[in-house]
Amino acid sequence: MSLSKNKIKCIRSLEAKKHRKEEGVFLAEGPKLVGELLGHFPCRLLVATTEWLETRPALADEVQEIVIASREELSRASLLKTPQSVLALFEQPSFQADAAMVRHSLCLALDGVQDPGNLGTIVRLADWFGIEQIFCSLHTVDVYSPKTVQATMGGLARVKVCYTDLPTLLDSLEEVPVYGTFLDGGNMYKEVLSETGLIVMGNEGNGIRTEVASRINRRICIPTFPADRLAAESLNVAVATAVVCAEFRRQAVTK
Amino acid sequence: MSLSKNKIKCIRSLEAKKHRKEEGVFLAEGPKLVGELLGHFPCRLLVATTEWLETRPALADEVQEIVIASREELSRASLLKTPQSVLALFEQPSFQADAAMVRHSLCLALDGVQDPGNLGTIVRLADWFGIEQIFCSLHTVDVYSPKTVQATMGGLARVKVCYTDLPTLLDSLEEVPVYGTFLDGGNMYKEVLSETGLIVMGNEGNGIRTEVASRINRRICIPTFPADRLAAESLNVAVATAVVCAEFRRQAVTK
Repeated sequence: MSLSKNKIKCIRSLEAKKHRKEEGVFLAEGPKLVGELLGHFPCRLLVATTEWLETRPALADEVQEIVIASREELSRASLLKTPQSVLALFEQPSFQADAAMVRHSLCLALDGVQDPGNLGTIVRLADWFGIEQIFCSLHTVDVYSPKTVQATMGGLARVKVCYTDLPTLLDSLEEVPVYGTFLDGGNMYKEVLSETGLIVMGNEGNGIRTEVASRINRRICIPTFPADRLAAESLNVAVATAVVCAEFRRQAVTK
Repeated sequence: MSLSKNKIKCIRSLEAKKHRKEEGVFLAEGPKLVGELLGHFPCRLLVATTEWLETRPALADEVQEIVIASREELSRASLLKTPQSVLALFEQPSFQADAAMVRHSLCLALDGVQDPGNLGTIVRLADWFGIEQIFCSLHTVDVYSPKTVQATMGGLARVKVCYTDLPTLLDSLEEVPVYGTFLDGGNMYKEVLSETGLIVMGNEGNGIRTEVASRINRRICIPTFPADRLAAESLNVAVATAVVCAEFRRQAVTK
């Protein structure tokens, strides 16, 4: 069976959120990423070269439909600059926001992160720092966007990402430490950071919305070096998230 | 004077490194970025709307040529998805690698970072953490690529980036602490990190080349959380650079 024009069209259409939502699937490309996601999400379609399929003899049980394709066919279906030997369509899970998670672990909330690469990078670093749940505001970019999925480097298999109204979520928490980074926040190295709770990160250009900021009860900042350096105004949101998460985890193990 | 077809073609051609090199210029777009770079690099051409130019009445002294353009003309010249009210061509500086810098300050070396966005993000965070010099291997992506310039968010005005043969540079250093991150390196939170020296970061897929790794005398790692978490394999290179730089600076101020 070769890769039909219809299937190529269907795969490529997944660049648009509308089509991903209608089909309830997302696209992942490349041996490493597809390999990490298999077994974590039901796989509706897998397209690969004979060579790749030979590396995975027991695949038929895990995948609804397998299509053998040439490199040339794969490159016509691919959304990557460098097409790979395998791509797959996985079913989107539907995680409900589980507010209880923030009472016994450290979670992230993203208030309007817009860049697909930034979101993917954040999922990847959450995986590194053992953060199992990310709450995204409803205006945060779709985590199933192909660019985001690629940037997670498989983190999507271990980090639950759900979309919810953040002010409502925060109102339901009470007493839980809710951290947010602000230029006028307290130097995070001088704060005793909690091992459970929520870290809120904002939009690339506009930061955290007022209605979310007003519900944050621990305002922190990442100090520049030297601390009075005024030139640089901000850090990329994925970078800032990483530096903050690293410090939470450093304090947790050095207590 | 309106924006000629020739000028539009010339501006758009700067997406290619070849043309940037031939002309010795780089492109920057947007009021904030152009505003930060003016005064730091000679400006060969500035294209802006009347409205933007009214905000900068004394501009003529700083700029070789000013062209007033409509929003429509600017959008035809722009390489951005969201064209801005101003763009400018600046002259590329030619920094010589100054090895002495690593003896009295903390510097970065990048061994083959390939993604323009990653490099720009690293320049931006170097600015935040007060790192004034970045040495790039000759196979590192061009810092004057438009995507990189945009991602620096003006950091290019304060951080010197130069291209040099890293093994030769490292051989010239002797006795200087040269750090690199490796999965089997020592937990960086348990190391006493130097206030001067060099931090080497590698390529997105392949890490640090053998000939560079062999010249690193302090092998460190960013621990996962928990420390025995095996699932996540790596961090994005800009994210890893940020977490490492933050820890060097944290130790410097808490000593």
